[in-house]
Amino acid sequence: MKVREGGGWVLCADMAISLLESVDAFVFDCDGVIWKGDQLIDGVAETLSMLRSKSKAIVFVTNNSTKSRAQYAAKFISLGIPVSQDEIFSSSFAAAMYLKSIQFRTDNKVYVIGGEGILEELRLAGFTALGGPEDAKKTVELSENRFFEHDKTVGAVVVGLDQYINLYKLQYATLCIRENPGCLFIATNRDAVGNMTALQEWPGAGCMVSAVCGSTEKEPIVVGKPSTFLMDFLLKKFNTDTSRMCMIGDRLDTDILFGQRAGCKTLLVLSGVTTLSKLLDPANSIHPDVYTDKVSDLLELLGP
Amino acid sequence: MKVREGGGWVLCADMAISLLESVDAFVFDCDGVIWKGDQLIDGVAETLSMLRSKSKAIVFVTNNSTKSRAQYAAKFISLGIPVSQDEIFSSSFAAAMYLKSIQFRTDNKVYVIGGEGILEELRLAGFTALGGPEDAKKTVELSENRFFEHDKTVGAVVVGLDQYINLYKLQYATLCIRENPGCLFIATNRDAVGNMTALQEWPGAGCMVSAVCGSTEKEPIVVGKPSTFLMDFLLKKFNTDTSRMCMIGDRLDTDILFGQRAGCKTLLVLSGVTTLSKLLDPANSIHPDVYTDKVSDLLELLGP
Repeated sequence: MKVREGGGWVLCADMAISLLESVDAFVFDCDGVIWKGDQLIDGVAETLSMLRSKSKAIVFVTNNSTKSRAQYAAKFISLGIPVSQDEIFSSSFAAAMYLKSIQFRTDNKVYVIGGEGILEELRLAGFTALGGPEDAKKTVELSENRFFEHDKTVGAVVVGLDQYINLYKLQYATLCIRENPGCLFIATNRDAVGNMTALQEWPGAGCMVSAVCGSTEKEPIVVGKPSTFLMDFLLKKFNTDTSRMCMIGDRLDTDILFGQRAGCKTLLVLSGVTTLSKLLDPANSIHPDVYTDKVSDLLELLGP
Repeated sequence: MKVREGGGWVLCADMAISLLESVDAFVFDCDGVIWKGDQLIDGVAETLSMLRSKSKAIVFVTNNSTKSRAQYAAKFISLGIPVSQDEIFSSSFAAAMYLKSIQFRTDNKVYVIGGEGILEELRLAGFTALGGPEDAKKTVELSENRFFEHDKTVGAVVVGLDQYINLYKLQYATLCIRENPGCLFIATNRDAVGNMTALQEWPGAGCMVSAVCGSTEKEPIVVGKPSTFLMDFLLKKFNTDTSRMCMIGDRLDTDILFGQRAGCKTLLVLSGVTTLSKLLDPANSIHPDVYTDKVSDLLELLGP
């Protein structure tokens, strides 16, 4: 067992045993941890089964807002991993729960830059949502007398990952935030990039969120990781202390920071966006407790 | 003559006379000063004629990068204002001149998020430019084995106002900046919004530039206002001291700041994006020397 300078400890058998003993609940990120795009990462299903067999609680907390919890549950099941919907906490759900937590008026509408998952969670929570996929193909021609109408009853704009980002959506969101009095600007998350496909990283929600920051000169309320907004929901679910929880993720600035802010143990896996050299770079100031290549190293070190 | 708290002086006849006496060269912003969208602002043509008749030098410095200098000259002439191309300094031109100033290798390519004007200026300066309008209609489907190819010889990405912003362009720019060693990230400007049509403001280049900041976690080199990069070109042209130049613009954070940083006199007009209440807002820290409603107030106060 040896420390790598600045990077935290490399996971070894002793440490894996000690982690299992000191943790009641494992909180997993999904992209880059459980899967890449639509491909399950090797050994994940078996590792999750092992943890469940040892009576560990498991939840999934993902910044990817394109899906609702129900859509995530379907994806897990299609990949052969049994989960229930209430083990899934997505940033789309977080956006809806944030609005509920501040008693956002249901006669105000919510404009969405992002995927169907956000709209579905907002509607499930009783809100009226506009935008999202239905504005994907809309174009604007900047002719002289073009006047862009927007709904004056929009009281919040939620921005997440949107592969169909366009000027129509950006103008709609900008007008709501700049012109509707008190309109909130909520970001599901600000991940710079993510593995939207297995082979490559793509601009993440941080791209679309920053675009709206650029046009509105406002900063958003972030509800996904590293914001600890969702932690209250996890605590209610687990009935344990955060010190007996372990956050497992592939991103330093969201997963590991989220875990640290909440007081959890943190395990970085190198199967996603963070490379070893990035972790060990002196410019990096976020250090997990432990790191390893992939989730299934736990299984390998602990046995089935 | 009275001062408005924090806002600078209101232009009056005495001050207009003193401005005319102490200034050899007037530097005009275009959008919100000369025109709004494609509509000339009342009295502009006559005011410019009056200044020229008094042997004042005139140039136009615009952050709007969608047009090249030649395209701007054509727009001026179509609106009945005689100009020569070398009186026009656009941020598209600034981007090309910046690359020339650093001796950017002409065997490296430049990827553009923005309009035809940037491509035209880059090509006139001898560079090979990709992207821009030809990528306007391109889409990407995030299928599992999709691999997005990008040109490894791109050594600079230039981002300006782009009404056809889409994921294709954002991914292209992001890959170049993140993966091509030493690739530069240049912003024509970072205006949050602008009067792209006469009736309304729209997201400005600041929106597209911030989107790329969000996905790359890098900050750009800004070549348009308030950067004073273009000032060397103006000084060569005018052969006068910046203290004998007056910047006339409608934006505090670009025009007035540019003028102040360069040591020019500054005149804010309220015919564009800055309202009187924004100017006088205690949160505003940028104060012009003088302000007035519109350019033609100069003509009214001075006579023809």
